[in-house]
Amino acid sequence: MPTVAVVLSGCGKADGSEIHEAVSCLIHLSRHAAGYRCFAPDKLQADVINHATGKPAQESRNVMVEAARISRGEITPLASLDPSQFDAVVFPGGFGAAKNLCTFAIDGPDCSVDPEVERVVQGFKAQKKPIGMCCIAPVIAARVLGKRAGGEGCQVTIGSDPGTSAAIAAMGSSNVARLVTEAVVDETNRLATTPAYMCDASVHEVFIGIGKMIDAVVAMTKR
Amino acid sequence: MPTVAVVLSGCGKADGSEIHEAVSCLIHLSRHAAGYRCFAPDKLQADVINHATGKPAQESRNVMVEAARISRGEITPLASLDPSQFDAVVFPGGFGAAKNLCTFAIDGPDCSVDPEVERVVQGFKAQKKPIGMCCIAPVIAARVLGKRAGGEGCQVTIGSDPGTSAAIAAMGSSNVARLVTEAVVDETNRLATTPAYMCDASVHEVFIGIGKMIDAVVAMTKR
Repeated sequence: MPTVAVVLSGCGKADGSEIHEAVSCLIHLSRHAAGYRCFAPDKLQADVINHATGKPAQESRNVMVEAARISRGEITPLASLDPSQFDAVVFPGGFGAAKNLCTFAIDGPDCSVDPEVERVVQGFKAQKKPIGMCCIAPVIAARVLGKRAGGEGCQVTIGSDPGTSAAIAAMGSSNVARLVTEAVVDETNRLATTPAYMCDASVHEVFIGIGKMIDAVVAMTKR
Repeated sequence: MPTVAVVLSGCGKADGSEIHEAVSCLIHLSRHAAGYRCFAPDKLQADVINHATGKPAQESRNVMVEAARISRGEITPLASLDPSQFDAVVFPGGFGAAKNLCTFAIDGPDCSVDPEVERVVQGFKAQKKPIGMCCIAPVIAARVLGKRAGGEGCQVTIGSDPGTSAAIAAMGSSNVARLVTEAVVDETNRLATTPAYMCDASVHEVFIGIGKMIDAVVAMTKR
């Protein structure tokens, strides 16, 4: 069975990995009997949000230390992720993907991508190993593999949000509108995506869509 | 469809709600089209554990504010939970259930239970409304409803851990050994429990067992 790297960005939808999405990824990988290992950048979060109030908190937290809450303690610095040791990589969503893994939340299509994240995405792509992403995380692929960065562009779904779709186009990639329970597979780039909480959805619908994304990732590891 | 109160105890297995368990509860409630609302005590956590190292961190965090990460921001102080307004209550596990909702992690069978937690458990029981619990959380029912506290005792499963089973017996309740993918239903107390991560299990097995516990809770709301 495949071994999959999961890249987390903290713990909580407003400043880290969206928890329901991250856990759904792990459940579906486990259902496939895929081994998984969680990674996160060992650096400070872009910010800390009090999730009860939605307001910034005057404190600082480390992305990897917080991500370890989702992974039950087992966590490895992203800098140690060697694509040759894994069969696929999965990026859950949440604002952390757009704040800590890249700067899309602030800079939109002009965003920069964390150098380790870019290395990982390019590394899996170069080895033709599948990449799975959900929610806002596909903007990372759209940026790294996009025509604007000198690539060929990729096809993703973040649902049908017009602003994010336009930003993906501006980066030289394309969004395919899909429902929360659906996934899009870009066979050329071996990239599977699903909208997750980019849609106004209930958690079991997010779980179903992520199941389809993970199904596609696991299937691609076998062909 | 039923409306269910979910009582969280923070965010992370070592000092709060076990995240995989809490999310599994929400997914299964959502699958049943049950409405849910998350509650947590508005107080400081007993401690804060760095989940990457497993060691205590020199900081303080609020149980409810951290729990809001799991509930995507929608959270209500436990003191506002009125059992008459809900059809059932569910307690995920994690060390937070044994540190922040009661003192079982320190005091074992001599533990005290947070007064609001005790009020909620007694309130749902008095109204014959189902209670669902997983992992270590069943010790709360074992304590509150146990013979030692003047009750009739209840039947739960926390798997087959000998020390916890003995503690449950000491509180005047009883443990029924079950596998992670199984649940126990105490029809007298309308109490459904499943071992979850009290077993050395993979996340999709925990998800399956919690599914059976939630199935039982939802079924009991209808009879």
